Amino acid sequence: MTDSWATSGADLHLELRGPGLRSGLMEALREAVRSGRLAPGTRLPSSRSLAADLGVARNTVADAYAELVAEGWLTARQGSGTRVARRTAPRPGPAAGPRAPAGRRPPVRRPPAHTLCPGTPDLGSFPRDAWLTASRRALTAAPHEALGYAGPHGRPELRAALADYLARARGVHAHPDRVVICAGFVHGLRLMARVLRDRRVREVAVESYGLDVHWDLLGGAGLRTPALPFDDHGTRTGDLDRQGALLITAAHQFPLGGALPPDRRAAAVDWARRTGGLVLEDDYDGEFRYDRRPVGALQGLDPERVVYLGTASKSLTPGLRLGWMVLPEDLVGEVLAAKGTSDWVTGTLDQLTLAEFLRSGAYDRHVRSMRLRYRRRRDQLVAALAERSSHIRVSGIAAGLHAVLELPPGTERTVVQAAAWQGLALHGLDRYRHPGVPPGRDALVVGYATPTDSAWPGALDALCRALP
Amino acid sequence: MTDSWATSGADLHLELRGPGLRSGLMEALREAVRSGRLAPGTRLPSSRSLAADLGVARNTVADAYAELVAEGWLTARQGSGTRVARRTAPRPGPAAGPRAPAGRRPPVRRPPAHTLCPGTPDLGSFPRDAWLTASRRALTAAPHEALGYAGPHGRPELRAALADYLARARGVHAHPDRVVICAGFVHGLRLMARVLRDRRVREVAVESYGLDVHWDLLGGAGLRTPALPFDDHGTRTGDLDRQGALLITAAHQFPLGGALPPDRRAAAVDWARRTGGLVLEDDYDGEFRYDRRPVGALQGLDPERVVYLGTASKSLTPGLRLGWMVLPEDLVGEVLAAKGTSDWVTGTLDQLTLAEFLRSGAYDRHVRSMRLRYRRRRDQLVAALAERSSHIRVSGIAAGLHAVLELPPGTERTVVQAAAWQGLALHGLDRYRHPGVPPGRDALVVGYATPTDSAWPGALDALCRALP
Repeated sequence: MTDSWATSGADLHLELRGPGLRSGLMEALREAVRSGRLAPGTRLPSSRSLAADLGVARNTVADAYAELVAEGWLTARQGSGTRVARRTAPRPGPAAGPRAPAGRRPPVRRPPAHTLCPGTPDLGSFPRDAWLTASRRALTAAPHEALGYAGPHGRPELRAALADYLARARGVHAHPDRVVICAGFVHGLRLMARVLRDRRVREVAVESYGLDVHWDLLGGAGLRTPALPFDDHGTRTGDLDRQGALLITAAHQFPLGGALPPDRRAAAVDWARRTGGLVLEDDYDGEFRYDRRPVGALQGLDPERVVYLGTASKSLTPGLRLGWMVLPEDLVGEVLAAKGTSDWVTGTLDQLTLAEFLRSGAYDRHVRSMRLRYRRRRDQLVAALAERSSHIRVSGIAAGLHAVLELPPGTERTVVQAAAWQGLALHGLDRYRHPGVPPGRDALVVGYATPTDSAWPGALDALCRALP
Repeated sequence: MTDSWATSGADLHLELRGPGLRSGLMEALREAVRSGRLAPGTRLPSSRSLAADLGVARNTVADAYAELVAEGWLTARQGSGTRVARRTAPRPGPAAGPRAPAGRRPPVRRPPAHTLCPGTPDLGSFPRDAWLTASRRALTAAPHEALGYAGPHGRPELRAALADYLARARGVHAHPDRVVICAGFVHGLRLMARVLRDRRVREVAVESYGLDVHWDLLGGAGLRTPALPFDDHGTRTGDLDRQGALLITAAHQFPLGGALPPDRRAAAVDWARRTGGLVLEDDYDGEFRYDRRPVGALQGLDPERVVYLGTASKSLTPGLRLGWMVLPEDLVGEVLAAKGTSDWVTGTLDQLTLAEFLRSGAYDRHVRSMRLRYRRRRDQLVAALAERSSHIRVSGIAAGLHAVLELPPGTERTVVQAAAWQGLALHGLDRYRHPGVPPGRDALVVGYATPTDSAWPGALDALCRALP
């Protein structure tokens, strides 16, 4: 564990990544120790095998173990694995109220002072007033029936507003009938995993670098996730073969930061047409391009072979739990059926509010304003690096909410650790590497959008101090 | 199918019951026909076997089939089962935009003019202004981090407000640490099903009458759901044996409408203590009692053996997708772990708003106002029945959002059908009967809360006209 700070409570950044999982798992383990179900000295399963059992990322389990070792619940020793600490674990009394948190947990490490972990927008810039205005307008105008349960398809007002916005802003070939509202990208991916499995798809090709929570989710649904090779131009979509689907961040590779070149976009769509495959386009931050107009979504090339997945998590806040899918016509019924049998989860009022927010132009205004703000931060980051060091450069296009800092070979772990000691939470590139891909270059994935405006200068300073 | 109207688009009333499932399934079937995957003349699986395959209620499939027969997609004939209609099904063109709905679906029957199907509060009474005020206050006061993803436990503000409210209004022994926010009752039940299965529980005892969506969900998680016998005093909890858990509507049996007598409440808790079982208390409408103060929740008797499940779906609107669980201490970790690995679904802004709504007293005021309104409707229903007919009486306690009307033997199907012809959607009692329970008395389950204030008098008139 080089990036020890990244396991602390402030590491709440990647959408649907570790924090909920990890804290749930930690609490489950604490409780098992507390209740005596896990006796002192008991050896725990390896993080790899527990992760496989639970269907979660290995890092999530490893992080939870590490944190509980830090808290004193577990011990870890080379060669003897992770065990329950040999201390008196009081058994809970009968039917008593819960003990006060202070009495029940050993002190935990302090959260870092700064974080540049990617995955979260600047929450301090959430447009509270504009959102409330939209909320009032939407709620005042809605007919009574609109206040009830929205159904698996999602509110028609929101589907119409999204179809219009996505066509205009992202070149998506959209029709409200083909838009399905979901509770964020991962929810959409989970639905697609179920549909693909039901269609007897066995493999979803993924990129060499990405989020393990996505690979784990697909794996948990019984789908293999081989990584496509990549080179300096990006993911080699020309190497696609008999996989049934491809999951790709075409507009802005996460985390590497490149844009898929036109010929590789075409190759992906050609492959899908030729083999009957499906492309799942994760357009998580497509609106944020600083050097030119955003390139349109891949979906526009062939709306019958590309599933477009978008989210409000980067443009507004992950707290909304709102995402959307634009589906090929022949998938709508299957996705609705999968959604119907699995969940009904997105609140109606937020859906109506987002529809009004889009329709009134407030969404465009907010994206424009955030684009300026993030662009400024990215420029400041590039300038600060240029000023203090000649051997660290920013790679990838000027886009999105994160940048990749290329480090001298062999220094990634040290830099992340040095940052942690300075109270700065950072992610190295290696944590995003697909297990099937050999270790590659050393780099940092810097989420410059994550801090609030007031925290940003301090975070940038801390980053510069941590760099070699 | 006696209650043919109940399958129409307006039958959107029972929380998480058929509509989403059914419409998703219908769309999937339409699409399969449209695309040619289901060729004309193909015989479909029986509703029983398809329901078993999909893990849904048989009624859901039967309703979907019936509706598609009505729409002309399928045909049904005694002895030859349900088949794809022999008509030309155009195959979709390549990469075209979706065809206009008008061109793609045969005309559907008109929705009923009135509905008294149970399960939904009066959406016309949703307190829009008070909700917006709470929303503004909550959003203005929230620190930046509160706008991010709320995590599987739920926002601490809401957990604290609920712990306070539930202790005060429902006698729940609650502590914020033990409250877990979920996206409605069914979501909580799904989490509990996973936890029970992981604890090697095999059987969850259920009541003789209830919601098949709950039984199906438990069945889908690998749990058997034997029905407990009932008599004039309610569910015979004294007959509990080696089942691992009991799902019960103690305060107001759904749909029969009785309150579980004190000795049977005690028997349920004694059983749980004796055998290590768990009681899952579905307190869906516990705040609505018209003849006395609401009886406190069963959970108060033994917070370590009873899981309390509540929801905003009846008190506010199912559109919020907000529910809550109050858990025994030793379950918190397991539920959070189950939640963490399965979903992260409840929007932060609604959670913060509901917290403020509770804290400010607006929730109490709204419940008080709805209590008066629903009580008046129930009184009007009883009076209208007394006036026009001597052989139909209302059974059950004066409580909740529905009433049971006892009908002369053998008339239930006829009455539901007569109502359908008059444009009134009604549910008979039989649709809530557990498959293991022999057919019982004839009755209607009348959701007098469902119409808006302006629609209520017309619905009541239509009901009276449909009665024998």
